[in-house]
Order: sequence, then C-alpha cells, then structure tokens
Amino acid sequence: MAVSDAQLETQNAGRFIVFEGGDGAGKSTQAAMLADTLRSNGHTVLLTREPGGTQIGEKIRALVLDHGQGTVDARTEALMYAAARAAHVEQVIRPALAAGTMVICDRFVDSSLAYQGIGRALGEDAVRLINDFATGGLCPDLTVLLDVSPADGRSRRTVGADGAPLVEDRLESEPDEFHSRIRDAFILLASRNPQRYLVLDAATEVSTLATGISAALDALLDGLEA
Amino acid sequence: MAVSDAQLETQNAGRFIVFEGGDGAGKSTQAAMLADTLRSNGHTVLLTREPGGTQIGEKIRALVLDHGQGTVDARTEALMYAAARAAHVEQVIRPALAAGTMVICDRFVDSSLAYQGIGRALGEDAVRLINDFATGGLCPDLTVLLDVSPADGRSRRTVGADGAPLVEDRLESEPDEFHSRIRDAFILLASRNPQRYLVLDAATEVSTLATGISAALDALLDGLEA
Repeated sequence: MAVSDAQLETQNAGRFIVFEGGDGAGKSTQAAMLADTLRSNGHTVLLTREPGGTQIGEKIRALVLDHGQGTVDARTEALMYAAARAAHVEQVIRPALAAGTMVICDRFVDSSLAYQGIGRALGEDAVRLINDFATGGLCPDLTVLLDVSPADGRSRRTVGADGAPLVEDRLESEPDEFHSRIRDAFILLASRNPQRYLVLDAATEVSTLATGISAALDALLDGLEA
Repeated sequence: MAVSDAQLETQNAGRFIVFEGGDGAGKSTQAAMLADTLRSNGHTVLLTREPGGTQIGEKIRALVLDHGQGTVDARTEALMYAAARAAHVEQVIRPALAAGTMVICDRFVDSSLAYQGIGRALGEDAVRLINDFATGGLCPDLTVLLDVSPADGRSRRTVGADGAPLVEDRLESEPDEFHSRIRDAFILLASRNPQRYLVLDAATEVSTLATGISAALDALLDGLEA
C-alpha cells in the first residue's frame, strides 16, 4: 500500500481513509458510522468532506455547486475543486495525519478524476496533474468505493429521510447518462488500484456495509503494525 | 511571434494585448487609453481584467483578494487564479478573438508566474503547468510590462486621485520585499520573451507611455498584415 510523505513524517502518523462513489451512494452515512466505530476503539478521528473542509474551501464549494453562480465550464470546475482540495490538504488533512489522527474524508482526488477527467472529458491525466499540484501527492491508505446505479443514486438523493423532496445541486442534476459514466470511471480507478480500494455494492444493508468497512480497516491497521 | 490556436481560427482573428506589472504601475490607465485609441481607429475592442472578467471569475476574485475569507495558502491561491482564468479564456477571450475583436487584458498568465510561481516560491514550471491547463496554451500577441519600483507602486495605490487614502487588497498589502521579488520576476519573464514583451518605465509621463504603446501595437499589426 502506498504510504504518503505526510504519513511518514511521524511514527504516530494517522491513516487517511476516503469514501468515493456516485451521489446518493450513502458515503456520508458510512463515513459517520466508521468514525463512531474508530472513536469507540480509542482513536482520534477527523471526519471531513470535499469540496470544503476549510473556510475558503466551503466558499469555493458554494460557488461550484450552487446553481446561479454564472457559467462554470469544465476546466474552471476542475480548478475550483483542486483549489478547495489544496486548502483542505494544507490546512486540515496533513496536520491531522501528522498528529496521529484517523482522517475520514467524503470524496478526494478520485472524484475529480471521475467527474472532471472522465465525466467532463477533460482527460484523466490532465486532471491528475492539477491535483498532484493541489495535494503534493497525498494518497489515501484506504479508499472505500460505494458502487451505486444512477437510478438508485437519484432516488436516494431526491427523497429525504422524512419522505420530503430534496433539491439536487449543479452536478447531481446532470442526466443519468453522465452519472453512468461516473460509475464506470470509479470502477476503472478501483481496478487500477486494487491494493487501496475496497469496492462494495451500495444497495447492501447499511449495517452489513459498515461491518465490511470496519473489517477492511482492521486488516489495514494490522498490516501496517505488523 | 507565437500565434495561438484561437487566433488561427478565423482570418479576421483579433489580437490579444496584455498589460503586466506590479500593483500601482498604471496598467488600468494605460489599458483604457489604448482601448480608446484603437476604438478611434475603427477597431472593435474588449477591455477586461484578471482575476475576473466573468460572473464566476469576479466571485473568485473576491474570495482570493478580499481580506477575511479564511486562510488562503499559496497553492490554493494559484489554483483560484487559474480557475478564474479558465472561465475568462473560455467564455470571453477566445470568443472575442475569434470574432476579430482586439482584446486588452489587465494581467494574464505571467502575473501568476511572477506572483505565485516566484513571489510565493511555488516554482515557475508548476504554476505554468496549471495555467496551460486553464488557458489551453493561449498566449498574448503583445505584453506591455509597466516596470514600477515597490515604493512608487505603494504610493500610487494607497492615495486616490482626490488625495484620500485607499485600502490595499490581500496581495497589495504584502511587504516591499515581496513586491521587489515580483518586479524582478517580471523583468526575467520579459527578458525570456523579448519578441512579445514591451518593457516601459512606469514613472514615465502618462501620455508618453501611451504613445509608445500605440506605436508598438501599430508595428505589431503592420508586421502581422505584411
């Protein structure tokens, strides 16, 4: 498993766990459940998300995701995500890892490769390059991909827990064909990086998913400590 | 002189003229004077500025330049400028050039190379790379560098035409040592690209500068038409 520079900085370095997948896959639910499990096992945990995670990043998030902010073409979108990510890595993620914190992040670089590189057809290599600039090469220890079909994703993100309708953001409201390409892109990225990817069917029962994710992380931590 | 793809797209392609230099060099004054001269000579002119120039770009401009938007580290700053630039090129500059418009822009890529690449020490090559992504390689036909000393620049930008004090933005309020590095960086960039750079002393009388800039542009247009 690739170990980043940040994680080599201290002996007590934390681990970096990322949740990826289409909108409505259940990433934030599973991320929160994993955070609870790790905390109850005595770990210090930071649960964060992209885009966002810093004051400037949350402002960029609003510009890039809210409707009515003016035309946001594909290159601009990719650079705005990268800008928010640079702030997040520099101000939040690297310091937390160096302090030994378990960092759980909802989306990271692979979302940009899938959405902007492949979904928007900017090219995976070009988008990877600007993200390498943004992150200084920081790579997750474990990436959990919650694989969701476009139809399931849309029904999950447009109906709230109370049955009331939810409004989709600028990217969520793209057509199913776009979300289908994103799904294929994530599967491709996972197949190229099997050593750090855990791919799970998002339609699986929530507690079963959580158990699988905890087990994978235990195996990772055991392997790193061995 | 490098001719960009956009400029080859039509036979009636416009020209792309950029003003560069430290804050307080008088770029916006000279850009406006050149626009007037070109218009009175029958050209269609677009006068624009960076960061900004589009709805999303002006919002990014406010995030990156206003004080109190949260910590903006160097990589984040460079990516935000590149994001605003991508929108500007895609939505404004390339369409205008293709329609035969003379585009006059207050700052472009070389400002990022000077401020973020050299001033913030991110490296000129790294900053050039994210800007190549942003612009698709668009290069000015003529770049006018108004060379100003840090002391002169500060006195010009902190006192309004009516003698009232002006407030400096986040970058302007950096110390003189920073602005001195920016000045040296612009001179270096100009020396490497003499075929497209016109370097003028910003302390020269305003109308003399304007005459020199018009003459350089006439020579450029004559050369391109010959």
